[in-house]
Amino acid sequence: MSEEVFLTNVRPMGGDATSVTIRDGAIVAYGDHAPEDARSIDGDGAILIPGLVEAHTHLDKTLLGMPWYRNDVGPRLVDKIDNERAQKRLLGIEPARQSMRQALLSASLGSTHIRSHVDVDTDMGLAGIEGVLETSERLRDIVDIEVVAFPQSGMLIRPGTATLMEEALKLGAQVVGGLDPSAIDRDPKGHLDVIFGLADRYGRPVDIHLHETGELGAFSMELIIERTRALGLQGRVTISHAFCLGMPEQDQVGLLIDALAEARVHILTTAPSFKAVPPVKRLMDAGVVVAAGSDGVRDTWGPYGNADMLERAVFVGLRNNLRRDDEVAMALDTCTWGGARMMGLENYGLAPGSRADLVLLDGETLAEAIVSRRPRKLVMKAGRIVARDGAALMVAP
Amino acid sequence: MSEEVFLTNVRPMGGDATSVTIRDGAIVAYGDHAPEDARSIDGDGAILIPGLVEAHTHLDKTLLGMPWYRNDVGPRLVDKIDNERAQKRLLGIEPARQSMRQALLSASLGSTHIRSHVDVDTDMGLAGIEGVLETSERLRDIVDIEVVAFPQSGMLIRPGTATLMEEALKLGAQVVGGLDPSAIDRDPKGHLDVIFGLADRYGRPVDIHLHETGELGAFSMELIIERTRALGLQGRVTISHAFCLGMPEQDQVGLLIDALAEARVHILTTAPSFKAVPPVKRLMDAGVVVAAGSDGVRDTWGPYGNADMLERAVFVGLRNNLRRDDEVAMALDTCTWGGARMMGLENYGLAPGSRADLVLLDGETLAEAIVSRRPRKLVMKAGRIVARDGAALMVAP
Repeated sequence: MSEEVFLTNVRPMGGDATSVTIRDGAIVAYGDHAPEDARSIDGDGAILIPGLVEAHTHLDKTLLGMPWYRNDVGPRLVDKIDNERAQKRLLGIEPARQSMRQALLSASLGSTHIRSHVDVDTDMGLAGIEGVLETSERLRDIVDIEVVAFPQSGMLIRPGTATLMEEALKLGAQVVGGLDPSAIDRDPKGHLDVIFGLADRYGRPVDIHLHETGELGAFSMELIIERTRALGLQGRVTISHAFCLGMPEQDQVGLLIDALAEARVHILTTAPSFKAVPPVKRLMDAGVVVAAGSDGVRDTWGPYGNADMLERAVFVGLRNNLRRDDEVAMALDTCTWGGARMMGLENYGLAPGSRADLVLLDGETLAEAIVSRRPRKLVMKAGRIVARDGAALMVAP
Repeated sequence: MSEEVFLTNVRPMGGDATSVTIRDGAIVAYGDHAPEDARSIDGDGAILIPGLVEAHTHLDKTLLGMPWYRNDVGPRLVDKIDNERAQKRLLGIEPARQSMRQALLSASLGSTHIRSHVDVDTDMGLAGIEGVLETSERLRDIVDIEVVAFPQSGMLIRPGTATLMEEALKLGAQVVGGLDPSAIDRDPKGHLDVIFGLADRYGRPVDIHLHETGELGAFSMELIIERTRALGLQGRVTISHAFCLGMPEQDQVGLLIDALAEARVHILTTAPSFKAVPPVKRLMDAGVVVAAGSDGVRDTWGPYGNADMLERAVFVGLRNNLRRDDEVAMALDTCTWGGARMMGLENYGLAPGSRADLVLLDGETLAEAIVSRRPRKLVMKAGRIVARDGAALMVAP
């Protein structure tokens, strides 16, 4: 990537208009002195933000582009888990194809980085991991995809899964996933010892789905924080969902938040509206990194997700009652810098030297652009255009 | 309206394809026998639903089409109320113009009926009522607008407001509004006696904003139900927001729901994600009419609303964890038949004899169309096309 690009008349984060020089896939400088031979692109007064970060989704099992799945699944968590494992074969939810579809949709919506949890279980084995790694390789110039080996059906309760988790890491999955150590795996110590053992041996980050609420979730969170400290994994561990931080006992929530901040454990929220949720503003004020994600996008769990991280920012704002313009910008932060810090991205952002992963938003002010969620005018990955006016340049299968 | 329309290849509520004959603004029959001389419109396989019902909004004070308002309002309810009264003059929020903008946006999104609360206070007097009534008249062939006289700044605490409320009814406002009898007006008996006194004398329905939570809200709700019974107003009273029905004490919520059902008092929800909310499914199962609304659309209270009642159905679904296809349809019901029953609309629906207030949705199934929220293909009001492909035919000021 040696082409120079001169992107004119853009407003970084909604500020004053300027131009950006991009070389070798990175932001070189701001200002209106066009370099010689640079390809000029007119930003037309759009708002410039860094690439959106989809920090929690499930690329392997979206139903995008498939015939509509009529959902009549039972109400319990285990109903949804068992149904999904069965439907994967019945419907033919092919991980490589489906992850391509969702990842290109994400790119069209301005996401330049995705962390995807990918199911590992004794039915499907590593088929999901292989499929998403294939997509990750095919889309390497369009969107960065990080793969979490995720024991969706439980690990200790399904013997053989822990071995598959290790094989997933050897195959190329970058992150060790986990799931409800008590509620699903029935053995919090055992579950976390395996997860953190893998992270320690392979030098990998950890990202644990923690749906457990109230005191049970708080206990699991304490165990996670203890292991993070003991293994020196500060800054490398994420707790996804973390509904227990929405418990009514505010003193206890305060102690947990202090401990998360001290151990630099990150929180990922999808800002769901029917569950208790982590208090985003309070966490950020305490110095905890908060990232956001779509979770499932139109899958057998539910029909709603659409992979739009601007809409997710709106959901974070609505859920946390963030109404002022500075608060709306804070909601967006969970979908940009928050996700980047959670994933440990290097050279992320708008400063000179940053990788030119950029999005141009149509909008009067930053807050207006966020709440309006119009089609993205331009999406760049490492200085190359990957989507224009809401459409990815590469066509999905 | 005597033109005959033959709308072909549409799928009522996502069912089998058929054609609809429309005459004199009403649905005459289904089936593929085209009447002579009818104007034929190809529905192209779209899903046919009755007009969406925006059952709670504030047309008089949206900022749509005005320069972006930078929100830095304080956190208390009274901060937002006082700020708004001040900004109306400072920004020049002209009720006739602003209500035209929002009502036409609503029409473009498929709403054929709107209930709008309109501020009545001793600063603005009846300017809001006059402006929205003007819009209601101008748009009479495009969208039905019902006006609620709404004492946003309090009634008893601002002497003169009750007199203005009565004048608003004489001027043409159809519904008597109210607001937090205890929390705002500091006199629940006094507030409700005035409201229900007006309803009784003028023979009007009642729609009360009740933000009061927990026991306080439950007490106000009891007072409202008592007056509904005493005055024979069953089926004519709506409680908007009703956050107290989201209180944790399930036995008490059950008693309130039984009393609402018995007195045929309706519940309006906006399905907010940061507040406790009425349990939609439980209410509907108990026979209570549940309607939905956007509440404020981009105003000085907050930037988020967009007047899309399909998006509101998604919010109702997300907030109430409605995931199955039949549950997603139930969420839409709050934005169609629920609103129609709340407002007492006659001849609403898809049955022969109903008024031809219709929307064509692009979608594979009803649930798919709802969650996808694509631009509405066609919107008809009394058999006339008022919007196509997401755009209203009439241009907003």
